[in-house]
Amino acid sequence: MAKQKPTIPSGTRDFNSETVAKRRYIFETIRTVFEKYGYLPIETPTMENLSTLEGKYGEEGDKLLFRVLDSGDYLSDVKDEIGEKFDSKVSGLYKWLDELETLRKAEGENQIINQQIIALAFEKERLLELRNEIGELYSIYSLTKYISEKGLRYDLTVPFARYVVMHQNEITFPFRRYQMQPVWRADRPQKGRYREFWQCDADVIGSDSLILEMELVRIYDEVFLKLKLPVAIHLNNRKILSGIAEAMNATDKFTDITIAIDKFDKVGLQGVRQDLHNKGISESQMQVLEKFFSLTGTEMEKLEKANELMGNSEIGKAGVTELKNVLNYLSLSGTTSSEIKIDFTLARGLNYYTGAIIEVKPVTVQMGSLGGGGRYDNLTGMFGLDGVSGVGISFGADRMYDVLEELKLFPEESLKTTQVLFVCFDEKGIEYALPIAQQFRKENISTEIYPSAEKLKKQMKYANDKKIPFVIVIGDEEMKSGKLAFKNMNSGEQRLMSSDEIITELKK
Amino acid sequence: MAKQKPTIPSGTRDFNSETVAKRRYIFETIRTVFEKYGYLPIETPTMENLSTLEGKYGEEGDKLLFRVLDSGDYLSDVKDEIGEKFDSKVSGLYKWLDELETLRKAEGENQIINQQIIALAFEKERLLELRNEIGELYSIYSLTKYISEKGLRYDLTVPFARYVVMHQNEITFPFRRYQMQPVWRADRPQKGRYREFWQCDADVIGSDSLILEMELVRIYDEVFLKLKLPVAIHLNNRKILSGIAEAMNATDKFTDITIAIDKFDKVGLQGVRQDLHNKGISESQMQVLEKFFSLTGTEMEKLEKANELMGNSEIGKAGVTELKNVLNYLSLSGTTSSEIKIDFTLARGLNYYTGAIIEVKPVTVQMGSLGGGGRYDNLTGMFGLDGVSGVGISFGADRMYDVLEELKLFPEESLKTTQVLFVCFDEKGIEYALPIAQQFRKENISTEIYPSAEKLKKQMKYANDKKIPFVIVIGDEEMKSGKLAFKNMNSGEQRLMSSDEIITELKK
Repeated sequence: MAKQKPTIPSGTRDFNSETVAKRRYIFETIRTVFEKYGYLPIETPTMENLSTLEGKYGEEGDKLLFRVLDSGDYLSDVKDEIGEKFDSKVSGLYKWLDELETLRKAEGENQIINQQIIALAFEKERLLELRNEIGELYSIYSLTKYISEKGLRYDLTVPFARYVVMHQNEITFPFRRYQMQPVWRADRPQKGRYREFWQCDADVIGSDSLILEMELVRIYDEVFLKLKLPVAIHLNNRKILSGIAEAMNATDKFTDITIAIDKFDKVGLQGVRQDLHNKGISESQMQVLEKFFSLTGTEMEKLEKANELMGNSEIGKAGVTELKNVLNYLSLSGTTSSEIKIDFTLARGLNYYTGAIIEVKPVTVQMGSLGGGGRYDNLTGMFGLDGVSGVGISFGADRMYDVLEELKLFPEESLKTTQVLFVCFDEKGIEYALPIAQQFRKENISTEIYPSAEKLKKQMKYANDKKIPFVIVIGDEEMKSGKLAFKNMNSGEQRLMSSDEIITELKK
Repeated sequence: MAKQKPTIPSGTRDFNSETVAKRRYIFETIRTVFEKYGYLPIETPTMENLSTLEGKYGEEGDKLLFRVLDSGDYLSDVKDEIGEKFDSKVSGLYKWLDELETLRKAEGENQIINQQIIALAFEKERLLELRNEIGELYSIYSLTKYISEKGLRYDLTVPFARYVVMHQNEITFPFRRYQMQPVWRADRPQKGRYREFWQCDADVIGSDSLILEMELVRIYDEVFLKLKLPVAIHLNNRKILSGIAEAMNATDKFTDITIAIDKFDKVGLQGVRQDLHNKGISESQMQVLEKFFSLTGTEMEKLEKANELMGNSEIGKAGVTELKNVLNYLSLSGTTSSEIKIDFTLARGLNYYTGAIIEVKPVTVQMGSLGGGGRYDNLTGMFGLDGVSGVGISFGADRMYDVLEELKLFPEESLKTTQVLFVCFDEKGIEYALPIAQQFRKENISTEIYPSAEKLKKQMKYANDKKIPFVIVIGDEEMKSGKLAFKNMNSGEQRLMSSDEIITELKK
């Protein structure tokens, strides 16, 4: 009987070896740059206590947490508890049913009542049945309220904050860490959106130096340069957004304004106008806002002009000074490959940014952001450690994968596979190949012997399917002469060579 | 108000950067060797469908699965369903209660019955209340029977079998894959046993060639040689165990025998004797068994002698031939660093092995197995793909970590950290350091600038804590002369050098 083919949960993925290799290329590129800037890796558990996760991502986020059931120990308690609850609710009913039974005997002559009372006794049986069944259900599967205390990691930021607070006595601040691990969200799966996906975060916590903002911009720059993927790095500052709201005389509508302008990319100026109009922003207020959007000149000049537009907003001017410092540090430390853009429309959804806001977008392909970040002044406050400033960035590894794939930017070297396959026609050939294959491996050449003497065609198909670039054929002639038939699978060229010559060739 | 310090679920771990680096050293060593033998990586999702996992690990295993709750969509359905179920159970009761009410009006004069009936009506209210409450509980938290369809990966073997069946049309056989991912078991946590731990498996499926057994032994040998951790690789064969049972004339007690001798290591011969005696193995049968344990000579000689002891057990002799072939292939392909031991007590708990059984044990430290594996003839049969033979091994990364730590075998190079820290005393110094630091990074030197002008002592403590080996101090003198104070943190030696000289020094 044919079983149904197994499947995997929706929104999750199997990765074959080619995909793993390509993903690894991305992760290792990011890792190398992170470490070059002094960021060191930490890893946190897949499961966190729900008390750590809940309430940190808003109401919507709580719904998207994957909750994990505890194991068996709680079950009997729950069963007892629910059983007792049921009993206390129906105990009165049982009692009256019993008394009615007594009554029935006394008042036996009243046939109608008698009938009703017998029926009631029957119902009592059904209630007892129900009580057992409910108890059983609870005992087997139980209520998640009682038995789910853990959830899957939803992002890397909250676990990082938890880590810092939990290990604060072992950590030297400023603490630079990176983390590259999967996260899980019970979102509706769709193209490019998965329920299991990877985040690559670098954060430094315990310093408010703007040197760090500069370095994070450089990390973005260097990673995408290495990946040969041209990007623009957009910069803004939460304080400038506040300054703009002050200049508009609309401080009370700060949230509405940031939400609206954050969509500038998608809906354009008209969309933002419409949105803000609906939120009660007047035409004259809108005109102030638009002045910020239409600033021209170098990035430094835009900041100068914004500073003037800001009038006497102290917070706005502080934001401008911060961004000017970051630009200054950037230019002192050398040129960047990526375009650096001051972008007053950049707000990002996250409410916890308090200073710099950073976002990276590809320039040669229409696709959303490849990463973003910013400064937050009180991330660890949620776990009771106040007054620690931090700044961080994140890479969207899955989207980066899609872009690199679309632009065919994965280098061939990233697709590691076996370098050479020994093809033999009989047991004798295999035994002849054994020491040679081992010699190859000693030289760090990834080597396989086709493990049984199948037909040539089958063995060659195997080499082709696995994209093995070289094949060595061992036949009687080869064993006699010691010269092996060395075939290049790409060019089709075949030469007779000694094993030493082949090693020299392969190590080129 | 001080919040309680956050915690992580019991049996899980945070890994700090030193631990991550050491673990990475293990994983990368294994990975390199796997790839050298043509094994390529796959990755499977953290969550598998429960239908994939359940029933694959025995009753005990099912209990140890971490089950994940589905997200919100199911809840209203469940609420309706349980509400209806309750209604159908109590509908009769409602009906009779209503009829009693009518009856009460008709039979009003009977005071006693009247009283009872009023009380019953009150109980009906309580039942309705209960119905709502139960419905509510179900709707909020729900029954896991309805809303848990996924579980966390319990091992890498079942997901691998699932993968092979699901992707059989994309795979070229024999399929060599490796997988290094965490798995989760709701076991009681204890020293060295975690609820989240890592497995590193290599398997090849779709070939019964004994070349593969030999290669897997070599992989073990090479990994532990690279790690400088001396091990013995124990070999046995399930068929030999069957042959022994036949020679003992105790085929019916095969399972008892394998379970008992598998504990040889822990309980010794006397323990095994006692255990088998309890299971009804006679003294003369025991003597046959002991002959196998006391065989001496080379490994090949032990096999020869076992072959004789086996009498005419066909299966036993087949097992001997297989192991002899493996030993022969091993010796043809060159010497091994590890001791290869034929070990007739080796059974391993797993019931699915059908041929070779392999186990690796450290020789210089008392600790259990560091890995094991064997051949299985029908792994994918559980998912409907029959007749595919496979063989594989697994590394116990967590225990390997413990052994390497105990024997102080982690090389210093594995502990990557920042190579050089710039220490500055003012903003001017920081700005001076910026381009130099960037020059260092261009040369792939991992470099940090302490991001603010703190006291020297604080900055030096930071370098110490982070084990940064070199520090460059930028003071007024240094900025004037261009000669930087380059300090070796281990030796304490300090020299004045140009940045180019330092780069040359660091790249040595």
